[in-house]
Amino acid sequence: MHKFLRVNMNTKEVDFQEVKDDYTLFGGRGLIAKIMNEEVDPQCDPLGENNKLILCPGLLTGTMAPCSGRLSIGGKSPLTGTIKEANVGGVAAQLMAKLGLKAVIVEGKQDDDSLYMLIISKDGAELVPAGKYAGMNNYALAEALHADFGSKIGIVSIGCAGERGYRNSTIQVTDTAGNPSRAAARGGLGAVMGAKGLKAIILNVSGPSDSQYADKESFKTAAQNFTAGVRDNAFSGKVLPGFGTAALVTAVNAMGALPTNNFSTGSFERAEEISGERLAEIHSQRGGSNGHACQAGCVISCSNVYNDEQGNYLTSGLEYETIVLNGSNCGISSLDIIAKIDRMCDDLGLDTIETGATIGVCMEAGKIVFGDGEGSLRLLQEMTDGTEFGRLLGQGTELAGKALGVKRIPTVKGQSLAAYDPRSLKGTGVTYATSPMGADHTAGNTIGSRGVKPHLKEGQVEASTQAQVTMAALDNLGICLFTSTCLGKPENIGHLVSMVQAKVGGEWDADKLFATGITTLSMEKVFNKKAGFTEKDNTLPEFMYSESLPGSNNIFDILPDEMDKAIPF
Amino acid sequence: MHKFLRVNMNTKEVDFQEVKDDYTLFGGRGLIAKIMNEEVDPQCDPLGENNKLILCPGLLTGTMAPCSGRLSIGGKSPLTGTIKEANVGGVAAQLMAKLGLKAVIVEGKQDDDSLYMLIISKDGAELVPAGKYAGMNNYALAEALHADFGSKIGIVSIGCAGERGYRNSTIQVTDTAGNPSRAAARGGLGAVMGAKGLKAIILNVSGPSDSQYADKESFKTAAQNFTAGVRDNAFSGKVLPGFGTAALVTAVNAMGALPTNNFSTGSFERAEEISGERLAEIHSQRGGSNGHACQAGCVISCSNVYNDEQGNYLTSGLEYETIVLNGSNCGISSLDIIAKIDRMCDDLGLDTIETGATIGVCMEAGKIVFGDGEGSLRLLQEMTDGTEFGRLLGQGTELAGKALGVKRIPTVKGQSLAAYDPRSLKGTGVTYATSPMGADHTAGNTIGSRGVKPHLKEGQVEASTQAQVTMAALDNLGICLFTSTCLGKPENIGHLVSMVQAKVGGEWDADKLFATGITTLSMEKVFNKKAGFTEKDNTLPEFMYSESLPGSNNIFDILPDEMDKAIPF
Repeated sequence: MHKFLRVNMNTKEVDFQEVKDDYTLFGGRGLIAKIMNEEVDPQCDPLGENNKLILCPGLLTGTMAPCSGRLSIGGKSPLTGTIKEANVGGVAAQLMAKLGLKAVIVEGKQDDDSLYMLIISKDGAELVPAGKYAGMNNYALAEALHADFGSKIGIVSIGCAGERGYRNSTIQVTDTAGNPSRAAARGGLGAVMGAKGLKAIILNVSGPSDSQYADKESFKTAAQNFTAGVRDNAFSGKVLPGFGTAALVTAVNAMGALPTNNFSTGSFERAEEISGERLAEIHSQRGGSNGHACQAGCVISCSNVYNDEQGNYLTSGLEYETIVLNGSNCGISSLDIIAKIDRMCDDLGLDTIETGATIGVCMEAGKIVFGDGEGSLRLLQEMTDGTEFGRLLGQGTELAGKALGVKRIPTVKGQSLAAYDPRSLKGTGVTYATSPMGADHTAGNTIGSRGVKPHLKEGQVEASTQAQVTMAALDNLGICLFTSTCLGKPENIGHLVSMVQAKVGGEWDADKLFATGITTLSMEKVFNKKAGFTEKDNTLPEFMYSESLPGSNNIFDILPDEMDKAIPF
Repeated sequence: MHKFLRVNMNTKEVDFQEVKDDYTLFGGRGLIAKIMNEEVDPQCDPLGENNKLILCPGLLTGTMAPCSGRLSIGGKSPLTGTIKEANVGGVAAQLMAKLGLKAVIVEGKQDDDSLYMLIISKDGAELVPAGKYAGMNNYALAEALHADFGSKIGIVSIGCAGERGYRNSTIQVTDTAGNPSRAAARGGLGAVMGAKGLKAIILNVSGPSDSQYADKESFKTAAQNFTAGVRDNAFSGKVLPGFGTAALVTAVNAMGALPTNNFSTGSFERAEEISGERLAEIHSQRGGSNGHACQAGCVISCSNVYNDEQGNYLTSGLEYETIVLNGSNCGISSLDIIAKIDRMCDDLGLDTIETGATIGVCMEAGKIVFGDGEGSLRLLQEMTDGTEFGRLLGQGTELAGKALGVKRIPTVKGQSLAAYDPRSLKGTGVTYATSPMGADHTAGNTIGSRGVKPHLKEGQVEASTQAQVTMAALDNLGICLFTSTCLGKPENIGHLVSMVQAKVGGEWDADKLFATGITTLSMEKVFNKKAGFTEKDNTLPEFMYSESLPGSNNIFDILPDEMDKAIPF
């Protein structure tokens, strides 16, 4: 990968550029942070013409490395006002790698409301009018684009949420089955794409990747070793393929960290009904299944296909976070309801985490009662229809919560907390508070951290720091975060280091690898500081410090000063 | 004034405290800044129990000084997240002074939704249940309280906007006629009072003030001289008494700085219909009038009483800002419509500036069209009724604008710009951007600044700085800002200095007087910094830098760096 594709939405010009040497060690999230710092005014309006939308495969995307097909998408977030990177599986990153594209950088914006799409193939790239697809949501759009361009294309697209500028809007990517089920979900990047007037990117390419290696044989050996490490790990090798991420429901509920009824308690009495075990049971009854890979080369296959009661495909990638935020957090225990919500979110282009948290504050406001699944679907329908209230909800939890007069709003930097209550899983709470991304579990979840007790104060800042650095390093490589559980074994870190060395050359060790994570986080913090953020923004909602969780009586007791001082980037 | 009254909404206890010596030189806005820095966590939830609501008369309130009865009300703003002081005329400050009250500090909050009122008299103070007044708006409330407590009381109260937690909610104060027409309008302090469970403060006191003077005779002479200075000034002595603040409409329109159609242009073709001249004409037809004083001891009397078509009282204090934000900024040229909006705002307890700007973004979003006065009234009615959309609008312009997907949102730090387009009146633009209060003309309007051309870049930062310091100094004293036009003559500054010296003793000069303003601003900035604000927040909306005003082609071209570096506090 040695080219940047610059796309100017004002002039409709596209330009392939050779990549300078100083970008060599950056990919994915790190490359986004570098480009954003070099090219984008941190104080710009996220939905204005000065923001950029940047899509970067990871440094190892397109290689033989397992689980290396993550696509990082970034820009300045209209939800948080911070720098934002959201990465996504599906087929797009590997198709970009086949084209030698290290980044697609979308600049400027349309003067009017007309929509364009970007078609990229081995012959080049062009922006063409996409008016005929305007107003389509992602499933219908994918179907129409497959009809027009063939079934082999990869699609990166927005639904109506992105077109309408919802601050809770995703960019969806098609999976190996061609469904737009994968989401670069967090931070409203769909609205950035929509504001630019870009409805979709079509990747029309086939054939093998032309990945270059410094030492191909060594890479192959290291990749095989790393694959074995991932497969040998109990979580990534057994639990995730067997039960998907939903396996976490029972464990997190037992910890008292399962967000329930708008983060008012950490355990849900009907947790069993939304558990991984229950999900597997439904699959066996209806012909859905776990064990799906969202991209070629995945050796974990944590994804699933969820069928409706008639046995027809309803949605794919029904994940733990989706289940909890839209399930227990709303007092809902019907996986069918939750799966419908997931489908509607993928279709419209909404982050399921943000959506569930938004519905939670609606319930707290008394708009509907906790447990009202049909009510949740009605609210999703309002978002889909674009009613006035639906548009409000589409702006995310903090805005909707404020508009509804809700006092308990579970957000950091304007972004909803994920499916771990920080009072019972404090290291993840530190990550929510201090990550440059706003509340985000993928920025450094400590649920697997060893040697710390989740509900005690001790060691959480260190655990979060280590997790944040590890995640940032993996996000640089385009490697799925679910491989990280195997990094508890030093030899697996060694295999990862060997892959990077064999790919880019030079001498690498673990310190150098993790230093890329630290560099990435530092660049992100520089951007945020210039955007006006300070350490004062690194805090959890006030109620997390004052309301203890029923049962456990856990409270979040790590003060902002204690977090800031300890984090070395 | 030598006592603090602390009111604890948790325990319902009230406590009179002797004031320590180090508060001697602080009053009004300065005293609020000092107490906030000493007692309130800058990162607290503005609507939570850790915020405080503080009411302070000025240092000269209760004396013979003209126009000295301003009441400063402050706390952390739920609209801006900054420290907030909003000052208001009416009778309350002078009644507090009669009771020797330097500050009322309301702490904690009710655990449930029940409401209390604070009754203060010469016999003491008590919190009593106010459930029977719940849900009343300010006019009905004033009538009920007058019936229950007599017509002589002064009332500080909230309407339903404050009860419901609207971030655009005022605290109203009764005027000399007993009408709740005066508003501590900006920053949503009504919601802070509502969150604490305090519906009203009743000041039940009569008789003379017991003001102490270091040198009473000197004070008397200085006050007479200052009064003469105010009366001799053309603006404060002739224009304001004759035409009220509405006199500015014609002048500001001629400058091309009259916000029109959601700040899309700076001149309004029907400006004459909302001018001071037109207002005077209506008064003469209907028996309304200019020349009203909102408090005893006012020698300017800029206020007015606006009667409806039947000649009955409709509203009082129909001001320039109200007229422009709800008039030209919404494309509306009917003073009757605007007066109805003003009445509804006072009644419900809404800031008329924020309200007009909010309606402006609704019009930009196509909710109603520019010029639709009846539509404006319908939106006000929705806010009054507390419909879902009305509650959204009650949260202010930025939140409503984001929810409606509007790109041009005229706010700084979450607060709407006042009635001067900063592209044509750049010094006031610098104040909007850099004031610790968010966009606020009363924090330092440069419309009267000499030696700078309003639309040119040169000298604006200096003009804003001087205006901000002057305003902060006056706000410390409780002196109405409309006296400031006479300060162009050095001898009037001298009279002001003499009053302060004769009141508090010691040696004073102009530098020392204005140093109180600098100290106040510095304390406010310290609070904001601890709350997480940086110089990056000191900027105008992006469109002010990129969209020029039609006709004049003026653009705001003073960059954040140029403003920050030049302001010495």
